[in-house]
Amino acid sequence: MKRVLLTGAGGYVGRALAGMLLARLRAGEIDALTLLDLSLPPLPTLRGLRCLEGDLGDASLLDAALTPQPDTVFHLAGITSRLAEEDFATGLRVNVGHSVALFEALRTRGCHPVLVFASSIGVFGTPLPQSIDDDTPPAPTLSYGAQKRAVEILLADYSRRGWIDGRSPRLSGVVARPSQAQGALSSFASELIRAPAEGRAMTCPIGPDGTMWLLSLSACVGHLLRAAEVDAALLPGQRAFNLPALRASAGEVVAALARRFGGGVERLVRFDPQPALQAQFAAWPPLTSTVAERLGMRHDGTLDTLIERALQPCPLSSPIFQP
Amino acid sequence: MKRVLLTGAGGYVGRALAGMLLARLRAGEIDALTLLDLSLPPLPTLRGLRCLEGDLGDASLLDAALTPQPDTVFHLAGITSRLAEEDFATGLRVNVGHSVALFEALRTRGCHPVLVFASSIGVFGTPLPQSIDDDTPPAPTLSYGAQKRAVEILLADYSRRGWIDGRSPRLSGVVARPSQAQGALSSFASELIRAPAEGRAMTCPIGPDGTMWLLSLSACVGHLLRAAEVDAALLPGQRAFNLPALRASAGEVVAALARRFGGGVERLVRFDPQPALQAQFAAWPPLTSTVAERLGMRHDGTLDTLIERALQPCPLSSPIFQP
Repeated sequence: MKRVLLTGAGGYVGRALAGMLLARLRAGEIDALTLLDLSLPPLPTLRGLRCLEGDLGDASLLDAALTPQPDTVFHLAGITSRLAEEDFATGLRVNVGHSVALFEALRTRGCHPVLVFASSIGVFGTPLPQSIDDDTPPAPTLSYGAQKRAVEILLADYSRRGWIDGRSPRLSGVVARPSQAQGALSSFASELIRAPAEGRAMTCPIGPDGTMWLLSLSACVGHLLRAAEVDAALLPGQRAFNLPALRASAGEVVAALARRFGGGVERLVRFDPQPALQAQFAAWPPLTSTVAERLGMRHDGTLDTLIERALQPCPLSSPIFQP
Repeated sequence: MKRVLLTGAGGYVGRALAGMLLARLRAGEIDALTLLDLSLPPLPTLRGLRCLEGDLGDASLLDAALTPQPDTVFHLAGITSRLAEEDFATGLRVNVGHSVALFEALRTRGCHPVLVFASSIGVFGTPLPQSIDDDTPPAPTLSYGAQKRAVEILLADYSRRGWIDGRSPRLSGVVARPSQAQGALSSFASELIRAPAEGRAMTCPIGPDGTMWLLSLSACVGHLLRAAEVDAALLPGQRAFNLPALRASAGEVVAALARRFGGGVERLVRFDPQPALQAQFAAWPPLTSTVAERLGMRHDGTLDTLIERALQPCPLSSPIFQP
């Protein structure tokens, strides 16, 4: 990993990953880092760092992003699950179209990079299976999930052909997103942690028994970096696998918050289950993440650890982003 | 089925389906029929019949094809498996790009048609599973299969959203293609039937024990018509299913030809198994096509019937195509 391109660098996960990559750039472990998104936070001036603002559908931007040729690409740019339902055309154009444009640009330039594609457990649809492992056939019932799944399949083909060394880890609910980030339909999980911790009331759109798969931002970023570094021989033929996640009910999350912040927080959460959300977002079954564990990836261990990590200062305000 | 659009109408399966649809147009069962392909054979002048020559990537052609709005679309246009391996960019552009362009045009116009997408058993990759049914997870190892699978997934999403009533029957080796049609990597199966029947020698690129899934052209066309007419409630959630096929080894096909044309034909076939083809094209396991059977679809029954049907005059030269 010497010349790295990160798309979606301005997003919630993207900023945190950018922070880790910037640290490697400063340490001389990376020679060149290109951060790309529609807009980016203020960034330091650093030798080897380039910031590109624009749309991956812009061929000249894409050309700039691939000059010099990256050996490692983290492709996180995408439209969220909520927007992909609300604005289908944009979801299709960005989630599928821009991904394919990126893959084609890499193929035709002969870059042969490792490419980590941030896929999603949204590839699994309702009714969710009784259990899920790496062999569970995805059957998406969200446009977001269908678009992610289509890209997984195409990326596996680019990998088979030898043009890209693709890896498609599927992210679950990454916590805790900032309160204003409501783009993901699953973002209530973040607010369920953040609001009580900050003494704010919140209405939880799933019931207390509703089960989620949760992963802290720091664990997620660690897994994405690891996904770029593992030997391709350890990956399944189709290159897609589920990241480990802690399975917990909304009620268990509130109980853990009460352990951390005192019993008063329980009164801040009102449960108002929305049938439209329950089936997709509150029925996650037991998960066996065999491939990820073989790659050395673990979930956060306990809810207490998860909450501690989830509430660490958001990289949005990290000094690493100060110019 | 009153206003019908058929893409890929100039292809092997497309011409035969066009012939059946033309008969329905003559009989007054269909009001309007639009045949579309890069090039079309000579066609009769008939009230309600339109022939459009061009590329589905041409927005004005697509607009013409959808005026008036079809209530039924047969989407057969595509690049063959051989070409999709040899010319990846064209396969991606046509098999994925044009399909999505068609779906988007139907969505934005509010057509809400039934759409039968000619998918393929190429969605299953090597090593092929020990048995295959409608729940077997596809894991393509051909670009053609990856592209078909990606479109299946997107079409299922258009169906879930209520914009298109999609059906994705997966075609197996449809026989017997004309000898000059070598676009499909599986087309040796056609030549294995056609050459000995015509007294020509042929080299079979799979061994005598290599097992194929075969379907006669007439059965295939019947299934495509049926797929457009069945109640959507009978379809699986993801809208994709395997068409029934007769499983037979190359040796069994030769033996059946010998029964029909005399023992001399056995000397016309030389087996020269190609390792690159064996795993994908000569290892088809037992098939259970539950969904298709529920829809009333059957395979050809016996190899003798299959061969009889496969050698019926090609619709290329059918009087129905004479102007």
